[in-house]
This record gives sequence, structure tokens and C-alpha cells, in this order.
Amino acid sequence: MADPTQEIFRGLEGVLVATTKISKVDGLGGVLTYRGYDIHELAAESTFEETAWLLAEGELPTPSQYAAMTRTLAAHLAMPDTVLEVLRQLPRTAHPMAIMRTAISAYGCTDTSAEEITVEAWKRVATRLVAQIGTIGAAAWRLSQGAEPIAPDPSLGYAANFLYMLHGKRPTEAAARILDIALICHADHGIPASTFSGMVVGSSLTDLYSAITAAIGSLKGPLHGGANERVLVDLDRIGSAANVPAYMREVQSKKLKVMGLGHRVYKTWDPRAIIFKKIAETRAAKDPDIARTFATAVALEKACLDAYAEKQLYPNVDYYSGIVYRSLGIDAKMFTPIFAISRMAGWTARLIEYLPNNRIFRPRGKYEGYDLRAYTPLAKRRI
Amino acid sequence: MADPTQEIFRGLEGVLVATTKISKVDGLGGVLTYRGYDIHELAAESTFEETAWLLAEGELPTPSQYAAMTRTLAAHLAMPDTVLEVLRQLPRTAHPMAIMRTAISAYGCTDTSAEEITVEAWKRVATRLVAQIGTIGAAAWRLSQGAEPIAPDPSLGYAANFLYMLHGKRPTEAAARILDIALICHADHGIPASTFSGMVVGSSLTDLYSAITAAIGSLKGPLHGGANERVLVDLDRIGSAANVPAYMREVQSKKLKVMGLGHRVYKTWDPRAIIFKKIAETRAAKDPDIARTFATAVALEKACLDAYAEKQLYPNVDYYSGIVYRSLGIDAKMFTPIFAISRMAGWTARLIEYLPNNRIFRPRGKYEGYDLRAYTPLAKRRI
Repeated sequence: MADPTQEIFRGLEGVLVATTKISKVDGLGGVLTYRGYDIHELAAESTFEETAWLLAEGELPTPSQYAAMTRTLAAHLAMPDTVLEVLRQLPRTAHPMAIMRTAISAYGCTDTSAEEITVEAWKRVATRLVAQIGTIGAAAWRLSQGAEPIAPDPSLGYAANFLYMLHGKRPTEAAARILDIALICHADHGIPASTFSGMVVGSSLTDLYSAITAAIGSLKGPLHGGANERVLVDLDRIGSAANVPAYMREVQSKKLKVMGLGHRVYKTWDPRAIIFKKIAETRAAKDPDIARTFATAVALEKACLDAYAEKQLYPNVDYYSGIVYRSLGIDAKMFTPIFAISRMAGWTARLIEYLPNNRIFRPRGKYEGYDLRAYTPLAKRRI
Repeated sequence: MADPTQEIFRGLEGVLVATTKISKVDGLGGVLTYRGYDIHELAAESTFEETAWLLAEGELPTPSQYAAMTRTLAAHLAMPDTVLEVLRQLPRTAHPMAIMRTAISAYGCTDTSAEEITVEAWKRVATRLVAQIGTIGAAAWRLSQGAEPIAPDPSLGYAANFLYMLHGKRPTEAAARILDIALICHADHGIPASTFSGMVVGSSLTDLYSAITAAIGSLKGPLHGGANERVLVDLDRIGSAANVPAYMREVQSKKLKVMGLGHRVYKTWDPRAIIFKKIAETRAAKDPDIARTFATAVALEKACLDAYAEKQLYPNVDYYSGIVYRSLGIDAKMFTPIFAISRMAGWTARLIEYLPNNRIFRPRGKYEGYDLRAYTPLAKRRI
């Protein structure tokens, strides 16, 4: 490997920037663990609240810790008036992630102890951020639809309360559990651009809100969040499983990219895709529209695996998650915000992990510009 | 140099992440150039408006380009109602940088073409951001003082208009020119954490406002912006040049850090410090309070160079700039915001420079956590 002080490490691909005990991705084995626990087990048995605690604290909570933590989360669900008023000022046409970015930044302005930069203080802020981001996300959606935000119901679980604030009616237990699993699955995954954005910002020992505001702004980008939204656009355009062969001919002749298939790290099934596919299948059994989209996705998955065997184009987390969200009545515009709501747990856990051995990120650019040249006064320049 | 895929590059110290033609820092020679022009020449002959153009476009503007650019800047000075209303909602107690972070994020929400990710679109946005950040900074300050924001006067130059919006009266030509030079001096300096924060966020091809919001949040941190504010606190505490010897004994016995002296890159005078020292001297000649602080600074500078000869503790940009700002009647709380206002030129120029060969930043963490372990249901955990 070349010397990174001489050669440019574009995108820092493969470069180690920190040690971590939070999550581990085994791309060849298709295994994702949070703090040593397999994502399949967590999806089957845990809750998002517990997973957020696990990521932050390193161990599963005891029953009393669990009870205390859910009480704290519930206590911070309601939005401060300042944040709600800021949300009301923002144009409805704005990108929902831009609105969340602004609202979280405004939320930071309301915290009079925001400048306390310690692990203990950041853990307190992290819990509040996990609580708030769902409320902010749901309110942003409702305001964009010309509807009034709905106050949280702290008696509900986190996922159920989010669906309640989003749709204005209490979700079924099944729907709430499905969103709960989705939140578990998206809570952490190495150091992608959003997490790294937060780490770089936080490394100047600025407040946690600044770092999270950056992470939201990064996740917003099309190279990062938002792939599941584009998967659905493609599946809708294809229309049915019967149209997949024709679509594949188009893909092959025009060398189109099929969204949601293939992954930089996973060279087999993304374990989260397995979880989402299973859920999508159960939802398809109850709804003919979802069934048609699901059948299209299955056919396209098979066609791509057959056509590009050497490329290992297995489904990633984005491939079936959009179908699942749609089956819960969630608009595609909210897919990336839900990713942000879930990832808040991982972002904050990683920022807190980096803090005790913090080192400010200060890389270099390789100068390839002009040598020293003399200034010409404005009047003497060519017109 | 070690292999960055095996060994952790803490803080990415010395690691090259991009090529650049924007600014060059020669730490041994004490030379800073923007696009090949020496900072001394720019400080003597250029304006902030011209410097911002130079950083973005690579060449000094022709007379007609200069005229067009100042017209465009002037046209975007006024704050949209949305941004002003958001500012009014935020608590006066909030950190001015947190307020600017929120206001710029809100400003992004008002741009219906924010998602246009091209060099041309970003150049348009960059000009607006340079125009707005001064207006936002001045308004944030006035609101924090319980005063009404003052609408910009587009007939004034950028620096003069900022002082006008800040203090509510037109500055002298000398004062405006001093701030103009200060803005030129802070406009770019390699890839510090704030600039890198913006680049990492921008690398997901999100909007420019998201990237700049991140940069502001990063600059806010005490390891980055804000050193000149702390220099003044120290100088005020020392009180006079006569007290410097006693203070030096304290510094040496308690191994205190003297703020504003020494620099990671410059092993001689920071060229910007030379510029600020000269200005501070002229200001000291007119004001006995400034004269006392300046004399204290000069004595402390000399004492530290004598006491720590081997450490090369030459003044950096922060050492005399606080004295200069104070001589303009600017409160210390506004020092970092003014840094942000100036650096907006560099941040946007570097983000635009990175865009055509964009590569998303996705480093790795070295996993040192638990191996796979089995999940224990909540009821079976120790209480």
C-alpha cells in the first residue's frame, strides 16, 4: 500500500481512522453484529430502544436500566416550542432532510448546556436526540402535507409512536413491530460518509448537535441515503414480474445500474436484506399491490444474479426495505428520514466512542496550483 | 510511512485527501499564497470581494467581472423573511455559531434549486452564501443584544456593510479597510477540520448548504475557531507589559499553554500575524486601552520567544487579530463568526473544486470489540 502522505487517498477508501467496538461487518460471511450480537438475533428479539442502548453502552440493558431508559426517552419525545416554531417557518417545498437538519440545529440552540463536551453530557444529549429526531421527522412530514403535527404518545413504544405521529392513528402491533425491526437494522453500519461527517465535525470538540446536523446533511446525499426510494421508482416503472425480462434487456444493452443490488462490502446476501425480504413477503401476502411489487423485485433479483453472476449482485439493505415501508403506508419521501431516525443511535454512539481519544481531523491537500506570481492592480487588468 | 489500511491514521495528520490549486502554505518560509498571490500583496491591494472571486475562479477578476460580481453580491445581501423569522425564534442565549449554523441551514431550505449539484449551480449558491453569512452574523449579534437587525446597505463594500449592520452606523473608511484585510487574511488556509467537514458532507453529493452547515459547526469547536478570543482573555488577565515577567513565571512553573503562539505548520512568523501586528500597532497609537493590550502582547511574544527558543513559538494569525477586532468595537463573541464569514469564501471554493472529481469519503474503523455472542432475553438478564 502506498504512502498516504505522498499519494492521494481518494475517498479514504480502506483507510483506518479509529478503533471501534460498536459494529462489525463481515462482508464475505454476510454477518453484521452490533456489540457482538448478530443482527438476525437483534431483529428477532430486541427493540430499537434496546438496540440504541446497546450501541451506546456496549452491553444489553438490565431490566431496571431498560425501564429507566425507556422512561427517559419518553420524557424527551415532545418537541420544544422553539423547534416547532422553526419548523413552521420553513417552506413546505424544502427537502425533508434539509428540514430535519435545520430542526436538529435549532434544537441544539435550545440546550443551554450544549457546550459541555464530556462523555456523560453527550450520552444525555444522545438520548434526547434519539427521542427528538422521530418527533421532528413526523412533524416535518405532516407540515409538508399541510397537516398539523401530532404530539407524541409516550405510552407507546418508539416505533409505534413514530407511526402514530406520522399518520395520526395508532398503528397495529404488527406494523409497529415491522418498523421497530427496520429501525434496528439501520442503526449502525461501520463508518459511512454520514458517520464520518459527524466524527470530523465533532473532532474540533464542538457540540454534539453540530456533529449530528452534519451527519443528517451527509445522509441526505444521493450517494448515501435514498437508494431504497430509487429502488421503488425502478420497480414501479417495471410494473410486474412479467416485464422483468424486457427490462433486463434494457439494463444490459444500456448498461444501466440496478438500484439496491450489490454492495461495496457484502459479497453475498446483506443480512439485513434477508430480514427485509422475509417481512416484505409477509406483507405481500396481505396486499395485492405490494404482492405485485414484491414479485417484480424477486424476479429482478433472480435475473440480475443470473445475468451478472461474477458481480455478486445480491440484494442490499435498500432492495426490499422500500417495499416494506410502502406496505406500512409510508411515503417514499420519508425513507431517508427514517434511515436518519434509526442511524441517530449509531451516529451518537460512535461520536461518544471517539470523544475520549479525540484527535482533530486535519488532512492535507496536494498543491498543484500556481507558483508565486505578482499581483496586478484591477485597473491594469485586461478588460 | 505505515500502511493506512493496517494502522490507524489518527486525525489523518499529514494524509493527502485531494489535489488543490487554491492556497499554499509554506510553513518553513512563512509564505501563504492564494492561487499563487502572496497574502501580503492581497492584504495590501485586494478586497475581500476580489479575494473571494480569486479563490473560487482561480484568477483575478477583470474590471467587468469585478463589477458584475460586486453587483451580484450586493443583490443577495438581504436576508429572506424565512431566515429572519427562524433567527427570531432562536434563544438569545445560544452560541452565535450555533445560531449561524441554524440560519444557514434554514437559508438552504428556501432555495428551491438546492438539489442542483453542478459546478455552475454551486458557484451561484456560493456567491449567495458569501453575501448572506455576513448579514446573518450581524443579525444574530444584534438579536442576542436585544436589538433589531439592520438591513444591509448594498452601496457599501462588503466589510463596511458588515460593520454597518453590526453597529448600526457607517464605519470610517479606515475601520472598514481593516476588517476588509482581516477577511482577506482568513479566507482560506489548507484543509483544516471545518473545510474537511464540508468536503466529507458534500462528498455524498448532498446540497452545498448541508456542507457549509457542517463547516460552521466544526469551526465552532474550541480546537478550531475561537483562539483569538482566548488570547484576549489571557492578555486582559495579565493587564500590562509590566506584569508579563510574573505571568511567564506562572506559565513556566505550571506549564501553561500561551494562546496564539506557535503553529502546527508555520515554524516562523505566520505571515498573517505580521499583517495583524502592523494593524494592531496603528490602532494602539490611537487608543490607550488598545495600546496597553498591544504592549502586553508584544512583551509576552518576546518573553515566549526567549523562554522557548527551541519551540519556535512565533505569533500565529490569532495572536494579534483579537486586538484588531476589539479596536473596531467588535465583541469577542463575534470573533469566530467573523472567521466563518471570511472562510465562507475558502469553504465554498474548495467544495466546488472537489466536485468534478468527487469521491465519497468512506474510511474504516478497526474493530476491537466483542466476537459473536448469544443474545439473552431481557427477562433472563441480571437485575
